[in-house]
Amino acid sequence: MTRDDIGKEQRESLLALISELADLARSETLKWFRQPQLRADNKLADGFDPVTQADRAAEMALRAHLARFRPQDGILGEEFAAVMGESGLKWVIDPIDGTRSFLSGTPCWGVLIALADAQGPFLGVIDQPYIGERFVGGLGQAKLTGPQGTVALRTRETQALSDATLSSTFPEIGTADERAAFQRVSDEVRLTRYGMDCYAYGLLAAGHIDLVVEAGLNAYDIAAPIAVIEAAGGLVTDWQGRKPGENGQVLASANPVLHAQALARLASAI
Amino acid sequence: MTRDDIGKEQRESLLALISELADLARSETLKWFRQPQLRADNKLADGFDPVTQADRAAEMALRAHLARFRPQDGILGEEFAAVMGESGLKWVIDPIDGTRSFLSGTPCWGVLIALADAQGPFLGVIDQPYIGERFVGGLGQAKLTGPQGTVALRTRETQALSDATLSSTFPEIGTADERAAFQRVSDEVRLTRYGMDCYAYGLLAAGHIDLVVEAGLNAYDIAAPIAVIEAAGGLVTDWQGRKPGENGQVLASANPVLHAQALARLASAI
Repeated sequence: MTRDDIGKEQRESLLALISELADLARSETLKWFRQPQLRADNKLADGFDPVTQADRAAEMALRAHLARFRPQDGILGEEFAAVMGESGLKWVIDPIDGTRSFLSGTPCWGVLIALADAQGPFLGVIDQPYIGERFVGGLGQAKLTGPQGTVALRTRETQALSDATLSSTFPEIGTADERAAFQRVSDEVRLTRYGMDCYAYGLLAAGHIDLVVEAGLNAYDIAAPIAVIEAAGGLVTDWQGRKPGENGQVLASANPVLHAQALARLASAI
Repeated sequence: MTRDDIGKEQRESLLALISELADLARSETLKWFRQPQLRADNKLADGFDPVTQADRAAEMALRAHLARFRPQDGILGEEFAAVMGESGLKWVIDPIDGTRSFLSGTPCWGVLIALADAQGPFLGVIDQPYIGERFVGGLGQAKLTGPQGTVALRTRETQALSDATLSSTFPEIGTADERAAFQRVSDEVRLTRYGMDCYAYGLLAAGHIDLVVEAGLNAYDIAAPIAVIEAAGGLVTDWQGRKPGENGQVLASANPVLHAQALARLASAI
């Protein structure tokens, strides 16, 4: 099946389910975030990786829930083998996007959960457990629930790079060519911000920033952001304007006008 | 008077007062953060600056409260003229530290409030209104209150740069020489994180990161972090190991061993 086969009743049930999954991941990840056992284990240079432990615990909880309520669907997750599924639908899971952020105690990592068909992701959640903030997009929804209540997600109408705010994980990521391409965009925008990991996609969907440029991403890093940003009126492609894919390059924009301008600066780096 | 003249009863009353001030600033800044009027006004390139409006509203509220309850003390704030005072004590206020963070909707700006005597700050609050998180240090307190309840602030015991996590606003700040000095430290640590503004000092005090290196800071940017970090067992100096001052350079560390190692890398940039 595809997104077009999903009726009203099933839509409600999928929205409820993705919310339950995000609740589960929230509770599993907060057992580790900023906790003494994370700090202690982190000192064992060659011991087990506590973030991976938290990742695994959360992903196992999500897989168990899906096995019970959506046994027919596939699963792609960071920590365990893919489940093929039979329905044509696939859950894409990254329980902790932003490992370094998680380890450093910053509140800008997130839980990413998406539902995709053969065309790609069409429902997504970006959840920040510590703040208690959830961005949901797809199946008719585009909303943020958090400390200020619930607000509609809607991307900005910024029409020129010179008015735009850009967020990126550069300079921490990318090849030298990719950094140069990122720099060409950064040089033209009004403001570049760093260190936000997946939280930046939520800010873009909510209309607070205009562009995200990243490299080195995996499929499970970008599925939920695609669904949330598209539901809010924005768009996400690779640096050549194609569906984000194997090369790990991502450009997310508030609107097509800005997207074209950023693409033109990025396009020479393949 | 100095910090040594403050008795037990006055200590309680000053701790209550700084908490009231932080509550006031929280409510004033949240009237603007991520709100439509901030977004709209921000498009008027030559109009008034909405962040400055939010800054001013918050600082006025704090000054009014101080005029009522601590008329004898001095005030140093970002937005209005200094008040000299007669008591020997001075309140140092930055209602929104991290203007670019505030404008971009990220949750890593903060309210900074400190109380200083002639020796420097001895009581400080770093407050993150959106998350509802407050770091308090001084007068016998060192605690964080937030989404996970109240926890004691205590810096880490990391003994080597190679095990340390560093946070900084570089590459956005500093001269070329300062960037080179920052890079010498960054090259040796395990992990460098960006984009945290004053929130990084809270993370250092809470034991989640080990070092903060900054340049271009003002006195009102660093007073509260000094008090909070010192109360948690850490230390803050300029890049020559002196009290932070006119040159705007700051090194904050979890402990003296790490501080000495970072200073050695920074010291050649004056």
